[in-house]
Amino acid sequence: MSKGSETRRRIIAEAAALFNQHGFEGSSMAELMEATGLEKGGIYRHFSNKEELAAEAFDYAWQEALKARTHDLDSIPNSVDRLKQFVANFVERRPSISGGCPLLNTAIDADDGNLVLRNRVRHALRGWLNELSSIIASGVEREEIRGEVNPKALAAIIVASLEGGLMIRRLEKNDEAIRAVQAHLESYLESEVRRRDS
Amino acid sequence: MSKGSETRRRIIAEAAALFNQHGFEGSSMAELMEATGLEKGGIYRHFSNKEELAAEAFDYAWQEALKARTHDLDSIPNSVDRLKQFVANFVERRPSISGGCPLLNTAIDADDGNLVLRNRVRHALRGWLNELSSIIASGVEREEIRGEVNPKALAAIIVASLEGGLMIRRLEKNDEAIRAVQAHLESYLESEVRRRDS
Repeated sequence: MSKGSETRRRIIAEAAALFNQHGFEGSSMAELMEATGLEKGGIYRHFSNKEELAAEAFDYAWQEALKARTHDLDSIPNSVDRLKQFVANFVERRPSISGGCPLLNTAIDADDGNLVLRNRVRHALRGWLNELSSIIASGVEREEIRGEVNPKALAAIIVASLEGGLMIRRLEKNDEAIRAVQAHLESYLESEVRRRDS
Repeated sequence: MSKGSETRRRIIAEAAALFNQHGFEGSSMAELMEATGLEKGGIYRHFSNKEELAAEAFDYAWQEALKARTHDLDSIPNSVDRLKQFVANFVERRPSISGGCPLLNTAIDADDGNLVLRNRVRHALRGWLNELSSIIASGVEREEIRGEVNPKALAAIIVASLEGGLMIRRLEKNDEAIRAVQAHLESYLESEVRRRDS
């Protein structure tokens, strides 16, 4: 990696941690300079503006979160078991970047403005929902999942309840609510999603 | 109401709308001045600092949200029907203050700092979960709800999945995910929560 692209990468990583904790609007130039140890000019040699930096930082943080959440998923052959492992990963594996889920944080941050960032988050959400939907759809095809299950709806239910549970965990600083969500999803996946005869 | 307390109330209402859209950290003094039409001194005659104003603004916004979500709830005698109406209110009745759910917004905003605001949001969340828990507990007592249902866990599942669904709605600007959550909760309340013999 050239020195320039290494610096760019380091700025993105530092900015990702800052934005994920204090938000795009809540992070000042002074904080960005302190976090990266660079002057304003040193930062903006690599990015055309704060929005571009925020979009890159979001993508970086999101990849880190996905890495934690999809950990070891491919090694599980059954689709219902894979969904259960995904839920467990979400609850138990903290992404390397502190401040909670980048998607939730940035969605709340960008939903009333900042179109560049909002489009980036929406793209991430759609990719994530599609990934879960396709696990579900292939489970239906392989007769591991009941035919009446709607893949898109089930993916939305899983993501919504986990993200809401995470919000409560971050506020309460305990796991009670998200563990209730996990138990609910696990029991729902067993009783209403898994095909009994499979 | 005296002129002073009327002005105070107006500042709170304007600040609530601003904070709910741009966050506590994302709302500048200049924006507060523009929203209220007052100078800095005119605002801080009524509040000791921005944190106090934000806490009051949050309480105001939260009361408005609760008003929408508990609309007509008391008139429904059966506890399961009351929970279903609560879910429907959440999905269908928009609070008067734009920018989405004040609890979700402020929780994300305050979870990495700002203790005053975080405590205020946590207090609101606990009150809300307690209210739902006590509907559920009294449903168990009145034998409308199955004895094995855990009121705290069910309350957390309802709140988490609705708030997560709302995040997706605000990002996608459509109702698909939150309607999937609503349908899931309604069917779960009928099949796993309501006592069959009641």
